[in-house]
Formats: sequence, structure tokens, C-alpha cells
Amino acid sequence: MGLKRLLIIAASIIAPLPVQQVVAQEAKGPVIRIAELEIDPAQMAAYSAAVKEEMEESMRVEPGVLALYAVSIKGQSHHLRFFEMYADQAAYESHRESPHFRKYVETTKDMITSRKLLETDNFQLSAKLR
Amino acid sequence: MGLKRLLIIAASIIAPLPVQQVVAQEAKGPVIRIAELEIDPAQMAAYSAAVKEEMEESMRVEPGVLALYAVSIKGQSHHLRFFEMYADQAAYESHRESPHFRKYVETTKDMITSRKLLETDNFQLSAKLR
Repeated sequence: MGLKRLLIIAASIIAPLPVQQVVAQEAKGPVIRIAELEIDPAQMAAYSAAVKEEMEESMRVEPGVLALYAVSIKGQSHHLRFFEMYADQAAYESHRESPHFRKYVETTKDMITSRKLLETDNFQLSAKLR
Repeated sequence: MGLKRLLIIAASIIAPLPVQQVVAQEAKGPVIRIAELEIDPAQMAAYSAAVKEEMEESMRVEPGVLALYAVSIKGQSHHLRFFEMYADQAAYESHRESPHFRKYVETTKDMITSRKLLETDNFQLSAKLR
């Protein structure tokens, strides 16, 4: 996605709201999960294909999957961090039971050399338009 | 922010686009930064006030600050993780030089007991409407 498209999206994020700022606080907001993964470098291409397929399918068919952000640590391209937003706990649990997620787990189980999943509480969540 | 408002926002995220899915990949997308902070428990309330003021000001006055998400690790409420999205590198650098960020740094420097800042490369960034 180019920056232009991102900015269009960003600009639309709170278009229906009267003020620029949107803030979600505490437990009333979405469910956030963080995952810290290390991938076998020799299998990175296969892992990348599998996880991107899974993410795209999740976004496409699961209304409760609001956002899936994955980045790699600079200089450590096989160390991935996921920041995931689900509408609520049920949406998160439904995601974990989905066929595409189960397929991803099965496909990638020998590609992931380290996995840390963090449950979180919301502290301050903000997104806004320009 | 209540779930209802969030879903309104989520539903508007790609309203102008013809398909449901929005994907940003690789270096063309926004600049993402992750921060891992531990706060002195005795100063958590003061830190919370200071950082939320800073986040709100950033969202209000900086067009290039696209999103600031902060969560605490469940069961470790003084361990915060920030996932920050900036339009580009210049927007990130401008943010770091802003008066409200500098004030935050000065105000909170003795409240933060551990700080880790991670630079990242984009791997897969997705947000969508329901």
C-alpha cells in the first residue's frame, strides 16, 4: 500500500465523527494481542507466504478481525512482532478456531523457532485523520 | 471509546475503497515504531497522565502521527508496549522534536525504569472494515 492510499484511509478513519481524535481506553475497547516470533531463516520465504495468506484470509472473512499489523525488527529480519486488534474476546477466540488460522499453525509449526504471545490490557488507543 | 464507536470507525476505514482489504507491505508503508517501557509503580498515575496528555496532543496537532496504540501486559500493569504509526520518517522525526514530546520526556524521565525502543521494517500491515 502506498502512502497515498494509507492517508486516504487515515483520513477516513474518523470521518463520521465530529472531532479529530479518537481514543479508546481500558477494557471497553478492542482486544489487543501481541505476538513475538522468531522464524527459521532458511524457511522465511515459506513462512512469509503462509502467514500472509492467513492474514489476508482473516481480514477477508472475519468481521471481528479489525487489524493485523506485522513488522520485523530492523536488522533482525526473522524476528517478527504482531500487533493484532479484535472487536472483542469472542472475535479473538473465533479467529483462533478458524480453518485458515488452524492451517497456518499446522503449516508453520516447524518454521517458528521461538514464540511469545502476550495478553494485554488497553491503556490508550488512538488513531486519527490528518 | 466504546465498541460501537470503534466499529463505526473500523467500518469507515476503507469505505472509499472498492474492496474490503487494505494491505501495506514493506518499506512503502508508514513508519512503525515499538516502545517497551516499564514504569515505576509508585509513579504510574503521574506517568499515565503525562503520556496520555502527550499522546492526545500528538494526535491533535500532528498530521503525520497516524496512530498511537499503548497497551499494558496483562498481570504486569506497569509494563507498557507502544505501537506507533507515522506517515513517514519525517513525520516521526518531527514528532520527536515537538514541544509536547519534549515536555513528556522531561516530565517522565524519572518515572520510567526501563525503556527499549525498536526500529522496524514493515512486514504486513492490514486494517479493514467489517
